[in-house]
Amino acid sequence: MIRGDAFPIEPWQVRETHLNLDQLAQSESLFALSNGHIGLRGNLDEGEPFGIPGTYLNSFYETRPLPYAESGFGYPEDGQTIVDVTNGKILRLLVDDEPFDVRYGDLDEHERILDLRAGTLTRRVRWRSPAGKQIKVVSTRLVSLVQRSVAAIEYVVEAVDEFTRVTVQSELVANEDQPEQSDDPRVSAVLKHPLEAIQHEATEEGSLLVHRTRASKLMIAAAMDHLVEVPGRVEIDAIAHEDIARTTVICGLRPGQKLRIVKYLAYGWSSLRSRPALRDQVAGALAGARYTGWDGLLKAQRAFFDEFWDCADVEVDGDPDVQQAVRFGLFHVIQASVRAERRAIPGKGLTGPGYDGHAFWDTEGFVLPVLTYTKPDAAADALRWRASILDLAKQRAELLDLQGAAFPWRTIRGEECSAYWPAGTAAWHVNADIAMAFERYRTVTGDHSLESDCGLSVLVETARLWMSLGHHDRDGVWHLDGVTGPDEYTAIVRDNVFTNLMAAHNLRSAADACARNAETAYEMGVSTEETAAWRNAADSTYIPYDAHLGVHQQCEGFTKLREWNFTAETVYPLLLHQPYVRLYPSQVIKQADLVLAMQWQSHAFTDDQKTRNVDYYERRTVRDSSLSACTQAVMCAEVGHLELAHDYTQEAALIDLRDLHHNTRDGLHMASLAGTWTALVAGFGGLRDDEHILSLDPALPEEISRLKFGLHWRKYRLAANVTHDEVTYTLRDGPDGKLTIRHAGEELTLTTRTPTTVTLRTREALLPAPEQPPGRAPRRHSAE
Amino acid sequence: MIRGDAFPIEPWQVRETHLNLDQLAQSESLFALSNGHIGLRGNLDEGEPFGIPGTYLNSFYETRPLPYAESGFGYPEDGQTIVDVTNGKILRLLVDDEPFDVRYGDLDEHERILDLRAGTLTRRVRWRSPAGKQIKVVSTRLVSLVQRSVAAIEYVVEAVDEFTRVTVQSELVANEDQPEQSDDPRVSAVLKHPLEAIQHEATEEGSLLVHRTRASKLMIAAAMDHLVEVPGRVEIDAIAHEDIARTTVICGLRPGQKLRIVKYLAYGWSSLRSRPALRDQVAGALAGARYTGWDGLLKAQRAFFDEFWDCADVEVDGDPDVQQAVRFGLFHVIQASVRAERRAIPGKGLTGPGYDGHAFWDTEGFVLPVLTYTKPDAAADALRWRASILDLAKQRAELLDLQGAAFPWRTIRGEECSAYWPAGTAAWHVNADIAMAFERYRTVTGDHSLESDCGLSVLVETARLWMSLGHHDRDGVWHLDGVTGPDEYTAIVRDNVFTNLMAAHNLRSAADACARNAETAYEMGVSTEETAAWRNAADSTYIPYDAHLGVHQQCEGFTKLREWNFTAETVYPLLLHQPYVRLYPSQVIKQADLVLAMQWQSHAFTDDQKTRNVDYYERRTVRDSSLSACTQAVMCAEVGHLELAHDYTQEAALIDLRDLHHNTRDGLHMASLAGTWTALVAGFGGLRDDEHILSLDPALPEEISRLKFGLHWRKYRLAANVTHDEVTYTLRDGPDGKLTIRHAGEELTLTTRTPTTVTLRTREALLPAPEQPPGRAPRRHSAE
Repeated sequence: MIRGDAFPIEPWQVRETHLNLDQLAQSESLFALSNGHIGLRGNLDEGEPFGIPGTYLNSFYETRPLPYAESGFGYPEDGQTIVDVTNGKILRLLVDDEPFDVRYGDLDEHERILDLRAGTLTRRVRWRSPAGKQIKVVSTRLVSLVQRSVAAIEYVVEAVDEFTRVTVQSELVANEDQPEQSDDPRVSAVLKHPLEAIQHEATEEGSLLVHRTRASKLMIAAAMDHLVEVPGRVEIDAIAHEDIARTTVICGLRPGQKLRIVKYLAYGWSSLRSRPALRDQVAGALAGARYTGWDGLLKAQRAFFDEFWDCADVEVDGDPDVQQAVRFGLFHVIQASVRAERRAIPGKGLTGPGYDGHAFWDTEGFVLPVLTYTKPDAAADALRWRASILDLAKQRAELLDLQGAAFPWRTIRGEECSAYWPAGTAAWHVNADIAMAFERYRTVTGDHSLESDCGLSVLVETARLWMSLGHHDRDGVWHLDGVTGPDEYTAIVRDNVFTNLMAAHNLRSAADACARNAETAYEMGVSTEETAAWRNAADSTYIPYDAHLGVHQQCEGFTKLREWNFTAETVYPLLLHQPYVRLYPSQVIKQADLVLAMQWQSHAFTDDQKTRNVDYYERRTVRDSSLSACTQAVMCAEVGHLELAHDYTQEAALIDLRDLHHNTRDGLHMASLAGTWTALVAGFGGLRDDEHILSLDPALPEEISRLKFGLHWRKYRLAANVTHDEVTYTLRDGPDGKLTIRHAGEELTLTTRTPTTVTLRTREALLPAPEQPPGRAPRRHSAE
Repeated sequence: MIRGDAFPIEPWQVRETHLNLDQLAQSESLFALSNGHIGLRGNLDEGEPFGIPGTYLNSFYETRPLPYAESGFGYPEDGQTIVDVTNGKILRLLVDDEPFDVRYGDLDEHERILDLRAGTLTRRVRWRSPAGKQIKVVSTRLVSLVQRSVAAIEYVVEAVDEFTRVTVQSELVANEDQPEQSDDPRVSAVLKHPLEAIQHEATEEGSLLVHRTRASKLMIAAAMDHLVEVPGRVEIDAIAHEDIARTTVICGLRPGQKLRIVKYLAYGWSSLRSRPALRDQVAGALAGARYTGWDGLLKAQRAFFDEFWDCADVEVDGDPDVQQAVRFGLFHVIQASVRAERRAIPGKGLTGPGYDGHAFWDTEGFVLPVLTYTKPDAAADALRWRASILDLAKQRAELLDLQGAAFPWRTIRGEECSAYWPAGTAAWHVNADIAMAFERYRTVTGDHSLESDCGLSVLVETARLWMSLGHHDRDGVWHLDGVTGPDEYTAIVRDNVFTNLMAAHNLRSAADACARNAETAYEMGVSTEETAAWRNAADSTYIPYDAHLGVHQQCEGFTKLREWNFTAETVYPLLLHQPYVRLYPSQVIKQADLVLAMQWQSHAFTDDQKTRNVDYYERRTVRDSSLSACTQAVMCAEVGHLELAHDYTQEAALIDLRDLHHNTRDGLHMASLAGTWTALVAGFGGLRDDEHILSLDPALPEEISRLKFGLHWRKYRLAANVTHDEVTYTLRDGPDGKLTIRHAGEELTLTTRTPTTVTLRTREALLPAPEQPPGRAPRRHSAE
């Protein structure tokens, strides 16, 4: 956990006021910079101490054999693990002869600021060496959102009260040592020295290292160049060896004098391009960076964010913690995706090695909904990545004796990397989640080109998968057996409601898409009979319901399973303390599953069902997954438990700023950070789109006095400003100047001429707020 | 597969008429000798060529880490693998200067005979060296059933037509190289050079090697001594190094002259005893062997088998293949168990490294029923082994947050070694199988001492396990969810009928045992309330039944799962070609499960239910397990499909003699070999004991004209001689001279004065014989 006072609650930045070495790894994740292509953990400039050193390039991975004590047919043989690539962040400093190291001497001041509008990480240090020399260092770091291959660091050293000889060693370091990892299965595999040296070059002020991974045979080039400004004499020297390149800058500073170094970094990797091509690519990127210059890079970065925040910002009056956190979350979601450009968005973005750097259903299920409404181009890019691995997904389906495509549960490059099939391959719902993301993109943006370019194939092949997985029983009812829904504590079940509804939606969406793209569908061999069969299966899908209790069953028979024996001694997360063999056949739920179905397939449930289902499942959900709190927030808000929804919103929002899951060290929880937006906008804003119309139905909890959010919808930009009593919708621009939305279930036409203000309906809960399992009630963290 | 003419069909021996190098590994398993403590694969005397070199000591294993790409709580960290220990079988021969090697020169004659009454393996060779020298070798090997630590080899070399210089190198070799293994999960892990040398000694005619395993820290001593007889001058020389001891015998033989060597071997191992104690133990055993002498060992061996066959022999007129096979099977079952003495009986006995040398439920479920009726002392020993690991089973239960004891699914020493919990830990039925074996032992032998010594604890702790696993639903019905029954293609299910019936039986047996041993039960903390709860759960156990189809459901909902898409191209075993994620939710069955329940819990089903269940499940059972054919034989016989039962009997019987599962190379299928007896005696003899009375109800298939079998029952020995029309029961001896049994459902009192002959009732099938999945009909192998 990170204490509530670790970072002052400030609306547009995350500021660390002093260095806490015990939380170094967590801060490295929080202060990570990325553009979706390059990711730099917030390691200290001087390289150590560190929690986990981390420099990542999206989809740059190494393969490793997956071991099985007892193997089985269809188990993936190779895993993919993100690689800590050549570290260009390092700027070591010697003060006279003593290395600047925060663990020695006196650290009089140490502040780090992640600026959510500037897109930079700034560090301010005042340090007195063991020999008594005092210096100030101010460094500012950015990963350019505009120049995709470029990162840059401005590093300024100032002598304070005496003449000081200052030596700065700016480095590129490959094959850094990694700390030992724990046994927690959510942590990544450790790769030791994964990079083979291919080439090294040094010129006076810059250098370049080229390496290659041993098994995956990916080549990476990293290059640096420097601008050095200093009043007096300076000596600059550069060397390069296989795993290190170093530019050394030496000068003397009188009190008040400053040495300023701008370090430009360029990265590139390829599985195809030759060494010279790659070398030239990074050299070119470096030249581009020098040409733009430090100030130019800074300016472009801010301009990017200005435009983003203009539409996407969320204002939360009354809860400054959530206000800060929702912006922090959107900032990292943008960082993880905006220049990913048809590569995966991993569960932890490029902020740490957790989950081996894999992408899961988190992307389509939790991150893309936010991007679709706030940065639709980035959503389209991510979907194009999915479509690009369709052939691998078809091969996987074929291996499993199935039709269509079976997308991987976890992967970097597209191959299935899940070594535990009950919570991997059996979680077929990932395919419907992907289909839904395509469908949502089309609905929200009105852009049909993605569907015709690549979405249709994805819809058709996932529909075919479902048809070969499901079957009709003797009464004509369609079933999906042996599946695992979102809740990983209840696996390999019959007729999981979430999966069944999502599959039915996938089948209908595919049939509709084929009707819209009849010619292409015909070329893909889709017949009228085939789409009719899809609709028939969708219409006859079994939805288990316990009439006695009046609640849906998460899966067939769920409500008759044994109850979990919660006690005051129950320790969470359960998966680290209880075997699957006990968890699976019990009514204990890791994360929203049936409750998530009620958000994503809202129209399939009545209000009364939603109320009773929330009540039933809240009592059994332990929230051992970071993919749960935001969903619980949304559905608690819908059924009128607004305070509970607020608690869940805080939990989703503060997951990393407070390290609530104790693993922020391994990277940020991108889905939960995105989920903060969802909790606010879908929860308190009531946003739904599962019926192809923009539906809103706001209601605020007591403490939040005002919530304002902006959305992209079709070619419109829309803002909603919600108070406890009313909502004002502003249609900022768009074709015809008018748009019909659904507000609180009724159609409402907005115009660009004037904002529309509507009184909110009163939201009353039909049941009292439910309790959660012992120790699992969400807490109001802002109260700390 | 082994061709039907590989071994002539002879009633009391298995004879190989010529050496087939392609089937060397299979023959090594078939010709393995063992006493349950020492196991020697049938490797050639000269050590090579070999399929798999193998010398085993029961429970002498090495541990190895079990790897998990994604680990989980409660997964066993260490596996146990049987070790190929110091090989004392080796007698290398040089003919003049040329090594005797069957791959060179001319092998004019090569015969091996496993004599099922003598308990020996004899080999006769006539060989001409590449230089043209002809010799005869006759070797006979035994592992003493009487002197537990002793094996011996008589090795006789004869010069045929010229003077020949003969050199015999008799060796002890540790850390033999092992062949590379396949990826088949049923094969063992390969340990490379697992033994650390501790001590080596050589005297003129004998030597000794002491080794220790690196991780499990078990110490083993192997020693040899020689008796050498030869007409002329002989030189004998001995050396010993760390991993080899060698006694060299050199002499010259004129035509017709013979060199005779008797090699005595002694083995011992311990986890506790000191090196000197172990050394003295094997030296003492060796002295004992020399004292008894070769002829004495041979005589004692034959005497042992004479006594065994006198009661246990099964005569099968009309099917010489099964006649040979049932004796072969009983021979190996005896070899695997008789001197195991409170060690496990592994699934493959001590005949090969398959399944890592682990013991499974096969022991209690398939091997012990046979031993209980034919060699009850050996059954008691095996059950005492189970009881000896009760503490480990209690620790395992505690780790899994359960009450009572959870016995391992697979193990050598007692710790759970199953790395795949859905077909390991979740197969809780192993606990009820063990309880049933204790209960059967008491019922059949009338010996209550085992129960009071250790059986009661096992019954109580397994009953407690079931109570903590099961739960009552809101209607008071008792369920067991998340379990895997015998059928490993349908795992982690709700209410598996087999498991539920067996658990209920376990609960009732435990309650009855507590009533019989009230004082001991009281000391174990068993209250009247507790046993009442056991009986209540047993009485309210849910048994899923499909009223529409009129069949039991193997598990809840089974009959509504999708059907497996069998085609002409379906390849078996399915587990090597299909993923679990497809197999589990389909109506495809690896091995008898519901059908096994109908054998072991016969009283719980009506005749009509049995008929319809057999019909339904026969069509869906692919028999990818060797634990299936015998059960299908028994139940097909009961419902009147006598010819089909005969086919299944042949399949069970010939599994290894014909290598029907293509893995006899890794060791014999002990359960299927025992199952031959079961197919005949429980199938065609109709033996049942689940109602605590000896029930028989014979009926023969067409080709078998007469079946005779003997049984131990309480203190009686009983024989049944069955023809197509009648059965004659002979009560050979026993207290009071009379015994009441149940014949064809009616009580029948037998006396020692005179045999009782009864006419058989006509067995008519109520339904036509069912078909099996394509390619899975059992074949009549004798017709080949």
